[in-house]
Amino acid sequence: MAQPAPTPQSAMRQLNLSRVLHTLAAEGPLSRATVATRIGLTRAAVSTLVETLLRGRLLVEEGPGRSGSVGRPGSQLRLTDRGPCGFGAEIGVDHLAVCAADLRGEIRVRVEKEFRAQHRAPDAVLGELRALARRARAEADGVGLRPAGLAVAVPGLVPRGTTTVLRAPNLGWRDVELAGLLPADLGEVTVHNEASLGGLAELWSRGDPAADGFVYVSAQIGIGACVVLDGRLLSGAHGFAGELGHVPVRPEGPPCGCGGRGCLETYAGEEAVLRAAGIEPGPGVRLGALTARCEAGEPTALRAVRRAGTALGIALSGAVNLLDPRRVVIGGTLTRLAPWLLPPLRRELGRRTAVAAGGRETPLPVTASPLGPDGPLRGAAGLAVRTALDDPARLLAAARGD
Amino acid sequence: MAQPAPTPQSAMRQLNLSRVLHTLAAEGPLSRATVATRIGLTRAAVSTLVETLLRGRLLVEEGPGRSGSVGRPGSQLRLTDRGPCGFGAEIGVDHLAVCAADLRGEIRVRVEKEFRAQHRAPDAVLGELRALARRARAEADGVGLRPAGLAVAVPGLVPRGTTTVLRAPNLGWRDVELAGLLPADLGEVTVHNEASLGGLAELWSRGDPAADGFVYVSAQIGIGACVVLDGRLLSGAHGFAGELGHVPVRPEGPPCGCGGRGCLETYAGEEAVLRAAGIEPGPGVRLGALTARCEAGEPTALRAVRRAGTALGIALSGAVNLLDPRRVVIGGTLTRLAPWLLPPLRRELGRRTAVAAGGRETPLPVTASPLGPDGPLRGAAGLAVRTALDDPARLLAAARGD
Repeated sequence: MAQPAPTPQSAMRQLNLSRVLHTLAAEGPLSRATVATRIGLTRAAVSTLVETLLRGRLLVEEGPGRSGSVGRPGSQLRLTDRGPCGFGAEIGVDHLAVCAADLRGEIRVRVEKEFRAQHRAPDAVLGELRALARRARAEADGVGLRPAGLAVAVPGLVPRGTTTVLRAPNLGWRDVELAGLLPADLGEVTVHNEASLGGLAELWSRGDPAADGFVYVSAQIGIGACVVLDGRLLSGAHGFAGELGHVPVRPEGPPCGCGGRGCLETYAGEEAVLRAAGIEPGPGVRLGALTARCEAGEPTALRAVRRAGTALGIALSGAVNLLDPRRVVIGGTLTRLAPWLLPPLRRELGRRTAVAAGGRETPLPVTASPLGPDGPLRGAAGLAVRTALDDPARLLAAARGD
Repeated sequence: MAQPAPTPQSAMRQLNLSRVLHTLAAEGPLSRATVATRIGLTRAAVSTLVETLLRGRLLVEEGPGRSGSVGRPGSQLRLTDRGPCGFGAEIGVDHLAVCAADLRGEIRVRVEKEFRAQHRAPDAVLGELRALARRARAEADGVGLRPAGLAVAVPGLVPRGTTTVLRAPNLGWRDVELAGLLPADLGEVTVHNEASLGGLAELWSRGDPAADGFVYVSAQIGIGACVVLDGRLLSGAHGFAGELGHVPVRPEGPPCGCGGRGCLETYAGEEAVLRAAGIEPGPGVRLGALTARCEAGEPTALRAVRRAGTALGIALSGAVNLLDPRRVVIGGTLTRLAPWLLPPLRRELGRRTAVAAGGRETPLPVTASPLGPDGPLRGAAGLAVRTALDDPARLLAAARGD
């Protein structure tokens, strides 16, 4: 299995193959000439690279684009919707999910299950996840997709580059090593904080990722967050950035599972909101009932959601004062409550960020992510696809059946 | 005055001259051979660059370093302590200061003045600053230094790349354009938030800036902050990052000048601490009296400082949960109270960052900056010097008297 070290030239070729793939993933279908312009190579060089990728069945060529265009209309290239795919998995507090995205980033397979993972042993939870992953893999086979990697979202702290969950208070996990428990037949597996993956999905869903900067809140039973600045996820010194759920809202407030008091989660976590609305949290009941009561104008329910929005506004005003982002995005299950949650959040944030807002006429945009609670799962699959596109040699070897 | 556009080759030469200068600023004195190793050029190429810089009197050559070393001992190069210098100025709420640093970064001249700038018209304040700058320039002349640029620290929001103070609540300034009011004879002038400059001074004062990451708090009448991640100052989308002073500590707390309530400044700003200790804030009295009472063990004074430390700990626990920095540094005048301020701050921070601390055995380091209240002024002069070292063509032209 020993391979010769890649020469600089072959490393450059791999990099250029990868740039062709990423360009088509972001903007395809495109002609060879447009790809050449985008990546700054000659058309001849791009044609050679494209030939390799067509032979490896990573690209598909489509007939002339527009008729009536001047000159010989170039045929259009796109990434295949068969062949390699990236798997994403999510371990939620009360659900498990696995999906597969093709190289274009489209979700093609998705299986999920209501499952109360809270305070269950990791091997029981991961056993369920492996069973879901087998179903997802079988469905992917059925549409001509084969696994090229897996990324897993967990609601906890994962030190950078490891598969260890250091703390996941809402699962009741502490120092859990997932390495031996993860699906073994989907390619390379990586593990990440769910809010970080949700933030990446949000970043990739927009037009100009390189210029984007935002605080993304993943609001569900736990409240996670991530910070994206200049198009890059801020990971922190140890990989633990984004713990918005434990930012103090009222320092003498109710005790929190983390050991602090009055943390954001004690006001705006899903269970706290349900309890404040007089709904006992538990499998099956949950947010649907609260949404219905808000729609019916039930005062206790509206008060509970308003209180959560205010608490989110207080915690986020600290983040906005410190980081000066371009926007704030709310994701996670609580986005279903956006019509009642966002107005008090915006009001509180506006009131407390007057200095940081400087002379801005318009308030900082605060929106619910269009991906809703799907962000982390989509981000996981998207990360697996992007990691695969970074390594065309491996994709091509898999295509040859090496 | 029209100059030909620099060819790529001359641009590369300018870049390499600048790299020689920055390497000697960071590590000098060094031999030519060591400089060549550091910047990855041949010794011959470095000798040519050094020749130019010696002729331009930006470098000085010293006799053989250690005797008894093997082979011909190389002579040592260092930056000159005469010639170009960077000026730094600080507009504080109750003081003005101007200093000059030589190319090695050493402060050679410093003049300052107690001056209550609060609620004074900008042209009166800047008139005083220009007078101080004239004195500093005369003193610099006296030791053979000539101005190569000025950076000014202000306690307010300065949009990136401008000389406009958008808001400085503790000065009572709003939308103040400084361009016509700044000293005109010290070279190019730039204006920055004081906490950002304090953070840069802290960063540059340590061994390995590129790997450093911290939250720097500039605690005085106003409380500013800046965030440094991976050795880079985080400026935010509009240049307004770091407004820790308006992070809410107790959301229903006392009203703040910013329009919010219970902001950190209302608990831990210098005036708030003095009032809580029963000392009426005003010119001349101030922190010395409070320090004396703390040293005497006076309970009201100790309680006031403890309350400020706790408030700082609450606000910083939000920042630490969000950003996962390597350390927290307190600068500004309040560092004089460090023995009484830091223990409650550390206690509060430890209690509220258990999740973000993950499995760390040792608590996050929280220290008083050794630069104390000098950070912003030193950072300003340091930035002016670094900006000058970025442009060797201009330094050499000035040396020739162009």
